[in-house]
Amino acid sequence: AKSNEPQAAPPVVHYYMNNVTNSRTPVENSETVLILTPLARFYQEYWDNLLKLSYPHDLISLGFIIPKTKEGNLAYTALQTQVTKTQSGPKSKRFASVTILRQDTENPLQSQLESERHKMENQKARRAAMAKARNSLLFTTLGPTTSWVLWMDADIIETQPTLIQDLAAYDVPIIAPNCFQRYYNEEEKRNDIREYDYNNWIDSPTAKELAAKMGKDDILLEGYAEMPTYRSLMAKMYDKSGDPGAKVKLDGVGGATLLVKAEVHRDGAMFPPFAFYHLIETEGFAKMANRLNWESFGLPNYLVYHYNE
Amino acid sequence: AKSNEPQAAPPVVHYYMNNVTNSRTPVENSETVLILTPLARFYQEYWDNLLKLSYPHDLISLGFIIPKTKEGNLAYTALQTQVTKTQSGPKSKRFASVTILRQDTENPLQSQLESERHKMENQKARRAAMAKARNSLLFTTLGPTTSWVLWMDADIIETQPTLIQDLAAYDVPIIAPNCFQRYYNEEEKRNDIREYDYNNWIDSPTAKELAAKMGKDDILLEGYAEMPTYRSLMAKMYDKSGDPGAKVKLDGVGGATLLVKAEVHRDGAMFPPFAFYHLIETEGFAKMANRLNWESFGLPNYLVYHYNE
Ligand SMILES: Nc1nc2c(ncn2[C@@H]2O[C@H](COP(=O)(O)OP(=O)(O)O)[C@@H](O)[C@H]2O)c(=O)[nH]1
Ligand SMILES: Nc1nc2c(ncn2[C@@H]2O[C@H](COP(=O)(O)OP(=O)(O)O)[C@@H](O)[C@H]2O)c(=O)[nH]1
Ligand SMILES: [Mn+2]
Ligand SMILES: [Mn+2]
Repeated sequence: AKSNEPQAAPPVVHYYMNNVTNSRTPVENSETVLILTPLARFYQEYWDNLLKLSYPHDLISLGFIIPKTKEGNLAYTALQTQVTKTQSGPKSKRFASVTILRQDTENPLQSQLESERHKMENQKARRAAMAKARNSLLFTTLGPTTSWVLWMDADIIETQPTLIQDLAAYDVPIIAPNCFQRYYNEEEKRNDIREYDYNNWIDSPTAKELAAKMGKDDILLEGYAEMPTYRSLMAKMYDKSGDPGAKVKLDGVGGATLLVKAEVHRDGAMFPPFAFYHLIETEGFAKMANRLNWESFGLPNYLVYHYNE
Repeated sequence: AKSNEPQAAPPVVHYYMNNVTNSRTPVENSETVLILTPLARFYQEYWDNLLKLSYPHDLISLGFIIPKTKEGNLAYTALQTQVTKTQSGPKSKRFASVTILRQDTENPLQSQLESERHKMENQKARRAAMAKARNSLLFTTLGPTTSWVLWMDADIIETQPTLIQDLAAYDVPIIAPNCFQRYYNEEEKRNDIREYDYNNWIDSPTAKELAAKMGKDDILLEGYAEMPTYRSLMAKMYDKSGDPGAKVKLDGVGGATLLVKAEVHRDGAMFPPFAFYHLIETEGFAKMANRLNWESFGLPNYLVYHYNE
């Protein structure tokens, strides 16, 4: 603009938080959804699945945070290519906006191999780093008009196209589908499915006793034989012939796929990168939300699928 | 726009968190500052003081959250009038952007009178509500390019015009000036100053012992004779003839005036609305930041002034 042109006054925006609703029928109410993905590796299947979501894309904003690693650079380039393609493609597929953050902290683990990631001694540092990445992404992208936040890991490659509507219809503060994985069952010589994510659980007396005896910075981890917690794992509750709409109350949640009412985060619920009631990251998030009087739920028979490395 | 016009692709934004710096010389580096104010009452002196800040206004964004009360409505109208005036006035005084949020929760206290606010039995509910208001404001307005967050209460009516530069020059994660109040000293028949904010303190063995004996949801409060903590209060450290640049390490901070590097918040540091190590709100924030390895500091001899009701 020329310097002698009258300049528009800078933006002043007023928001009535009352008008930012969360309802069972978010599409009808034009509620906006922010999909947040920490992304270390890019899978085309993840992006294709995202594009198939039937929630109106003009009500969806995307946010990514990518680590400052060689692998992160590759993921960044691949993501950019797809974003550019989608955002200049058919209007009905375009998302309202896309924000891509590059992390400024080093990754505490050299290797992203599943075997390395899941080693128990590596878990605390890794999950603290993940928690900080999630917080950075959340604090930076949550806006005044966001109604829902859908956390979706970059290796979730298959969901129902109606995922958002299906989860929102339960009208609860925090809700997680059951995260499974497709694989080839060598014994039975056929394609099969198996449980993947153990972070969705109901607490147990054993876990509480373990926690009570721990040092203040120690954390409980789920899914390790060395530390049996006897928590009830949602992964184990899947019942093929059960009620597809079954819903259970959870004490810990995973972030692989998780729908959260934005007001839960706005009240202050974040992902503790430190031991919070001996819990960390997404499991600590469920506990923190609970301290803010928000409840978490899970859908044992509603599946989403994790990539099989 | 006509429906057959080619439509611009929706925004895709890329941010390198590395490039969002915090330095001793933020003006030279064009670092953006987000000034956040929970506002229940509007004081013209607060606004006039804000306008006098010499930090370039085009690098400053403002964010307000206003309660859903009669008093809040009045404050909202008064604020709007001033915002409109400033944002359509001389360019050098205009702020980069202004966001005004109206809270959707009821105020737990009926009366905003100082005597009511400061009653000990009212403190926990009141400070939990304040913490949630601060979190809502923070989560909603912090953007990807924000370098600094300046928390400034609506009843801070006098600071140095160089406040931001002065505090940033210390190059520490969290820093609080000393919050005083002007009053008429009846005894000495002259205008005088006295301490106001007791939330900036260094921890004490007594406070730690008190905390150790408390129920898990109980909180320690500062400035109440019923509960002497023997913490070292920054308010009491003011020394008129001391080093004006003196800096002390703090364990608890107030939010009346507080400069925070945005990365501290991005890591997840928020204002706990629940007992966090028996601390709540801004004092809990300092503790949480500490758990995230960020330190808090105070300037005993650098004063800002609170309104005298
Ligand atoms: N920003 C960021 N994302 C990461 C990092 N490590 C993993 N991720 C992503 O975070 C999500 C969860 O990590 P993942 O390794 O799949 O966890 P797992 O499935 O529980 O083993 C995935 O979307 C990863 O791509 C990291 O260091 N930074
Ligand atoms: N949004 C919001 N702001 C509030 C509320 N109560 C007080 N405030 C503001 O929060 C700040 C701190 O509150 P104040 O009552 O001054 O605290 P005190 O000085 O410690 O007694 C001031 O800027 C108030 O205007 C509330 O319920 N909601
Ligand atoms: Mn994964
Ligand atoms: Mn005040």
